[in-house]
Amino acid sequence: MPRRPRVVVVGSGFGGLRATQSLARADINVLLIDRNNYHTFIPLLYQVAVAELQPEQIAYPVRSLLRRLAFANFLMAEVTHIDFANQVVITDGLTIPYDFLILSTGSESQFLGIPGADKYALPMKTLQEAVYIRNHILSCFEQAVRELDPAQRRLLLTFVIVGGGPTGVELAGALVELIQGRLVKDFPTLEMEQVQVILLQSSDRLLADLPLRLSDYTYKQLQRIGVKVYLQARVSKVTPNAVYLENGAVIFSKTIVWTAGVQASPPAPTAELFPAAKGQVAVLPTLQLPNHSQVYVVGDSAYVEQDGEPLPLVAPVALQQGTLAAQNILRQIKGKEPKPFRYVDKGRAAIIKRNAGVAQTGNFTFTGFPAWLLWLAVHLYYLPGGRNRLIVFLDWLRDYFFGDRAIRLIFPRSSRLVREDDMSNSPKDWHNQEH
Amino acid sequence: MPRRPRVVVVGSGFGGLRATQSLARADINVLLIDRNNYHTFIPLLYQVAVAELQPEQIAYPVRSLLRRLAFANFLMAEVTHIDFANQVVITDGLTIPYDFLILSTGSESQFLGIPGADKYALPMKTLQEAVYIRNHILSCFEQAVRELDPAQRRLLLTFVIVGGGPTGVELAGALVELIQGRLVKDFPTLEMEQVQVILLQSSDRLLADLPLRLSDYTYKQLQRIGVKVYLQARVSKVTPNAVYLENGAVIFSKTIVWTAGVQASPPAPTAELFPAAKGQVAVLPTLQLPNHSQVYVVGDSAYVEQDGEPLPLVAPVALQQGTLAAQNILRQIKGKEPKPFRYVDKGRAAIIKRNAGVAQTGNFTFTGFPAWLLWLAVHLYYLPGGRNRLIVFLDWLRDYFFGDRAIRLIFPRSSRLVREDDMSNSPKDWHNQEH
Repeated sequence: MPRRPRVVVVGSGFGGLRATQSLARADINVLLIDRNNYHTFIPLLYQVAVAELQPEQIAYPVRSLLRRLAFANFLMAEVTHIDFANQVVITDGLTIPYDFLILSTGSESQFLGIPGADKYALPMKTLQEAVYIRNHILSCFEQAVRELDPAQRRLLLTFVIVGGGPTGVELAGALVELIQGRLVKDFPTLEMEQVQVILLQSSDRLLADLPLRLSDYTYKQLQRIGVKVYLQARVSKVTPNAVYLENGAVIFSKTIVWTAGVQASPPAPTAELFPAAKGQVAVLPTLQLPNHSQVYVVGDSAYVEQDGEPLPLVAPVALQQGTLAAQNILRQIKGKEPKPFRYVDKGRAAIIKRNAGVAQTGNFTFTGFPAWLLWLAVHLYYLPGGRNRLIVFLDWLRDYFFGDRAIRLIFPRSSRLVREDDMSNSPKDWHNQEH
Repeated sequence: MPRRPRVVVVGSGFGGLRATQSLARADINVLLIDRNNYHTFIPLLYQVAVAELQPEQIAYPVRSLLRRLAFANFLMAEVTHIDFANQVVITDGLTIPYDFLILSTGSESQFLGIPGADKYALPMKTLQEAVYIRNHILSCFEQAVRELDPAQRRLLLTFVIVGGGPTGVELAGALVELIQGRLVKDFPTLEMEQVQVILLQSSDRLLADLPLRLSDYTYKQLQRIGVKVYLQARVSKVTPNAVYLENGAVIFSKTIVWTAGVQASPPAPTAELFPAAKGQVAVLPTLQLPNHSQVYVVGDSAYVEQDGEPLPLVAPVALQQGTLAAQNILRQIKGKEPKPFRYVDKGRAAIIKRNAGVAQTGNFTFTGFPAWLLWLAVHLYYLPGGRNRLIVFLDWLRDYFFGDRAIRLIFPRSSRLVREDDMSNSPKDWHNQEH
């Protein structure tokens, strides 16, 4: 009797987790490897950044998610190299042989080569980065109340978000709601007219991937709640205290959040991986590597075209690719041919503020309350773990009816604003831990 | 008309927070200063360390606690010096004059001069330290599953708690419950017989401040659930991988939690403060400094004797002293004499495990379920903020009926076990941030 095949999955994001669960349910031995012991629900990171949700509410221990699956195992380790010829994954501890491999290593912020952006702008792609932004924003307010110089105070109270995609739009709206709903009460001595939230978009409209009608609606809604939206605003330089635009304008700010671009973070790049756009790996339509039919790449790290267009780096693509990679491995085990990937686009949605969102599904677009409700429902549905779903739902309900945010802790104290001499937790150290 | 008097309170622990609230309710202008923007409910730190509660559940933003008090203000700052002669508090930002001052700066771990203890043992006096211990314990298990050498695995799975007071006892019991209730399921491939929880007590009984009957009960209960309790076990040295006892015994372990002693952490010690035992400040029976009648010291930083015995460093003493300091300042403002402090001891309680605790009030001692229930009620009652109280209660209920712990994230990744090269978040850095 032949040995049971063993599948190794690298990365516990949407694609990797879905593939692991599908394979284990089909009684295939599968080992999931990640450097963190939890799965991060990245679409809600911005709610952690504005102290709306606790980090624990959008992160779920991988071992809990796999607990009822007898054929699934988890290893917390850092993958340092993959030896495709000998079919082994080399980690900082063990070396693990595989029969099939699924790479699902996600993406990280891309700073587009703009000077200072990688050093001074704040990315928001991991839980640690989102918590860092939360602590930083709250520290800016704490610092502002003790600041006697009005110019310094304005610097601390100006918040710039670079990137007018869904993440930038959602963060801008949520930040205004944090400030107007809660920080106004926490800081009664502060003149709130000095607080500015600025959203910079390089192209001529927000949410460029959605229909024009939704872009216009989003622009108007954000303006109405006080966000200053600058279109065709291309960043040319970032410094610790300012962001410079190509048109010569300078915005002075201590807080420049970067949501303007992502690039794939492939595991241990080797000459055997064919690089494509944005650091992604070129794969066959079946998601297999061209030269290694037992290796699959899914999610943000895979470059796949459909109808002549590259697929977007979004969670639904990763989930569907995770499912297909698992199915294709099952087919290979049974001696069948793998099938090509075909993305079924169910639509997109973004939230702007309380009671207002935009959504598109097929040829339908809608705005306002229905889109907002749809967004909530979709995100709750995809949140892993019934407990998280319930708690997040209750938190949203409480926030909706009482406007109360529970968690405004500056913890762990990591902002460079808090203590100039303490650089041990500077943003860059945090990033290094994740990437 | 005379200027309204201004009171400055340093430290937002039990004593400082209580004093601030009392003064503000009496329409006195009061400014509370702390280096963190939250109040920590220290008696429940151990539940954070065993992933039973989230950090946010036992920490509460100070600005929320003071929101309805128009006369109370908060400043997040580090106090660097106090100029008693000129009546100003000097912080890392502003310099603040005061008419009355309350010092409530709490305590920190004391390592009793034992070699290596300050460097390799893990204290548990702050939220960051508790989260660090949680991450460390979970990392030990993650590391153990990938460890092939049985001796190394045993090292990772041996957990030593130094100190048999309430904190040590509670942590030992809760750690066993975490392991037996939850980690057994998370790590199905691990041989749980290899896991050891060891409690070291220097004297001949646990909970030495409570009646002997309760000590005996606690000892038996801990033994029954599998904790190895060593009495008269004095630590002589701590290394990264072992704790050495005076009797020559050596226990190999990667995890040595230190609950064996505390000392006051007075703010900016000067020659004008009279030092007493454990770094505390000698004060008059009225809690005033002998040479500065407008300065009060409360809580763990104050050395106060009652009936010839020094008062213990516990929350009820701090709360009662905070109340009295506020009353005495009101008396001084009205031209009356301050009153001496008298501690009303309502009793003590400690929890051992599910359905088992010990409690003493007056001449009554009780054990088991009633003591356990009393402990829960007392801690819920003193937890600040209705929301926290409800959420903690629901979490305890869920844990009681389902044995489920929600939060087993290793986050932020800070354990020296996770990545040897990443020392930016080593335990010592974390401590430096707090102290």
